[in-house]
Amino acid sequence: VIGEHRHTQVKIDLQAIKHNINEEMTRKDPLTELWAVVKANGYGHGIIQVAQAAKQAGATGFCVAILDEALALRAAGLVEPILVLGITEPEYAPLIAEKDISVAVGSQAWLDQAEKVLAANHVAQPLHVHLALDTGMGRIGFQTPAELAVAVKTLAQANSPFDFQGIFTHFATADQADDTYFTHQLDNWKALIAVVPELPRYVHVSNSATSLWHQACNGNMIRFGVALYGLNPSGTDLSAPYQLQPALSLTAELSFVKKLARGKSISYGATYTADQDEWIGTVPIGYADGYERRLQGFHVLVAGQFCEIVGRVCMDQMMVRLPKPVPVGTKVTLVGSDGDQEISLQSIADYCGTIHYEIACGLAPRLPRVYTE
Amino acid sequence: VIGEHRHTQVKIDLQAIKHNINEEMTRKDPLTELWAVVKANGYGHGIIQVAQAAKQAGATGFCVAILDEALALRAAGLVEPILVLGITEPEYAPLIAEKDISVAVGSQAWLDQAEKVLAANHVAQPLHVHLALDTGMGRIGFQTPAELAVAVKTLAQANSPFDFQGIFTHFATADQADDTYFTHQLDNWKALIAVVPELPRYVHVSNSATSLWHQACNGNMIRFGVALYGLNPSGTDLSAPYQLQPALSLTAELSFVKKLARGKSISYGATYTADQDEWIGTVPIGYADGYERRLQGFHVLVAGQFCEIVGRVCMDQMMVRLPKPVPVGTKVTLVGSDGDQEISLQSIADYCGTIHYEIACGLAPRLPRVYTE
Ligand SMILES: Cc1ncc(COP(=O)(O)O)c(CN[C@H](C)C(=O)O)c1O
Ligand SMILES: Cc1ncc(COP(=O)(O)O)c(CN[C@H](C)C(=O)O)c1O
Repeated sequence: VIGEHRHTQVKIDLQAIKHNINEEMTRKDPLTELWAVVKANGYGHGIIQVAQAAKQAGATGFCVAILDEALALRAAGLVEPILVLGITEPEYAPLIAEKDISVAVGSQAWLDQAEKVLAANHVAQPLHVHLALDTGMGRIGFQTPAELAVAVKTLAQANSPFDFQGIFTHFATADQADDTYFTHQLDNWKALIAVVPELPRYVHVSNSATSLWHQACNGNMIRFGVALYGLNPSGTDLSAPYQLQPALSLTAELSFVKKLARGKSISYGATYTADQDEWIGTVPIGYADGYERRLQGFHVLVAGQFCEIVGRVCMDQMMVRLPKPVPVGTKVTLVGSDGDQEISLQSIADYCGTIHYEIACGLAPRLPRVYTE
Repeated sequence: VIGEHRHTQVKIDLQAIKHNINEEMTRKDPLTELWAVVKANGYGHGIIQVAQAAKQAGATGFCVAILDEALALRAAGLVEPILVLGITEPEYAPLIAEKDISVAVGSQAWLDQAEKVLAANHVAQPLHVHLALDTGMGRIGFQTPAELAVAVKTLAQANSPFDFQGIFTHFATADQADDTYFTHQLDNWKALIAVVPELPRYVHVSNSATSLWHQACNGNMIRFGVALYGLNPSGTDLSAPYQLQPALSLTAELSFVKKLARGKSISYGATYTADQDEWIGTVPIGYADGYERRLQGFHVLVAGQFCEIVGRVCMDQMMVRLPKPVPVGTKVTLVGSDGDQEISLQSIADYCGTIHYEIACGLAPRLPRVYTE
């Protein structure tokens, strides 16, 4: 394992993940299933461990982005339904069917091609299909009742190689206070599903934000993603109906400590110069770990105290200004809390001008993930 | 392999890597060794494949950032010297010695601790040490002749568990036209090594920029990093003495194509609205692949033509505006060239406000690497 011999680690609190799922389980309609969205290596938290924790907390299915992520879950022994949310190349239809995986389908052309591939390969197992409806996300899916009706007919044919297992849409603005666009999408959704004579087993529209703030539309399954990791989908705009517990922290240890004389500079480009004698610590993490180069000027906690990142963040190391000399090996908290102080993924994302989703996903594989229950 | 069933791929041209190394091999003093810097998974290109190609082109050693990367090279059967450039925790001294790995050392305290651990574990193999001198990078290393002299004495002791294999420094501004700070560091370097009675086997100061633009200081080994991947260390500020060939390209295929009616919007936040009927393609890549969310408004090549990224980049997908309808499966070039047009890592980095190093390192493991010779 790359990262095994390293004191710089991503720590994942599986109890927090279970807590977040439990809260949602309690809150939602009991007939509505919760599927855990574990794509992108479980938003950087580790796909297999998160999936297993989610299952223990009551998740009855999983959502991923690409076929390989679904295969990884199957290889780990998870037998629950798994939905691939993106469009999978139809050439993989036999593998999808064989592994009992479900895929999002957004066009008649896809069904036609997959049908051919399945026939040519004499595949006996049905291929589970969730029809994707584009109600305003503009990403994938059927846009009009007419095209949807044709696909539904194809799925209903006698001897169809498909199992029409689900129908869904995705909201673009469920995390915003203004629900104008959300309502517009909801109207489109209603108009579209009106052409489906018999709805399939799973009818679903909710990401975390929709389930948290528009619970009434949930349908009978929710695709619960970012909130299960304890992150608020809206950033700081809307408050969640229960306490979300962030599961991820990121810690390191100072690898070097020195006195820097007044007038000396730090890191590439010598962009930071000490205007008095200072204590400087080196943190063995850098942008190749997914700790963005833009974080120069941001802070970490060293033994629980805020310290500024001085000079450019390097590929594998960066420097912080210490209030006083501390030993090499002193704990550095980059994400999470130490004592009374805390650094959230949200604050890092704000500093970088992005969203916590991107920071979490970006944490590199060479950072070992360490799990606690 | 996560990413195996995916038409979205990072392609690495090993021939380009060999070309870049060959050019530098020809240019440098024949007695100066070239060690390939392959940390951070070979700057995202794949550590093992890059190391093997570099070796074939004449590299006689490797540099990495952390111990696990060195172990990965050993596990792949590479027997050349490997230098860990960061500070490794002294508790791993026995493993370092056993695997014949070399480490950067920047303090007497490290030597003292490692000596204890080696003795306690009855390690017979010598531990190869490269003393790091901090001449103005402000990151790791000895700052003063006095502290350096003590360390050199420790290494020279009879029965020392250490092999004093190298001494080095790192320049903060070798990629800049203004060489004031570079010269200042060089003076510090000369003053520091003056206290070493007998220089070790490897005396090295050069990253790519130093070797390209300050070749006279090279010493007898260079740590050749970014230029071997075909990237100019200065961005576009200085021109390289030979043609650098970028080794990396990134391609995908459109997963969905649709007509978007005037007035309809795209992606999260509905930040993009079509002001006329438009053709929109979906590209199955997103920020969880390391394609930054900031790239909204940037472009890709679809069948060789520039197309704008419209709406927010999602975690696993994004949308582009097409000049005309093209089939699903049409080739998308995100990095590299198609026909007469090209998109460089540099242009992506410029758009994101960072450096190509960070973009290359950030490409996620779920993007399969495909190698050509
Ligand atoms: C179709 C679909 N459903 C459900 C989710 C879960 O969303 P959340 O994490 O907000 O609960 C996602 C995630 N989307 C990511 C974030 C994206 O496409 O960018 C999704 O694409
Ligand atoms: C000590 C040392 N030597 C040699 C190199 C190779 O540099 P280049 O890729 O520019 O040839 C690096 C890379 N540094 C990275 C980029 C960093 O620390 O940010 C390095 O840290």
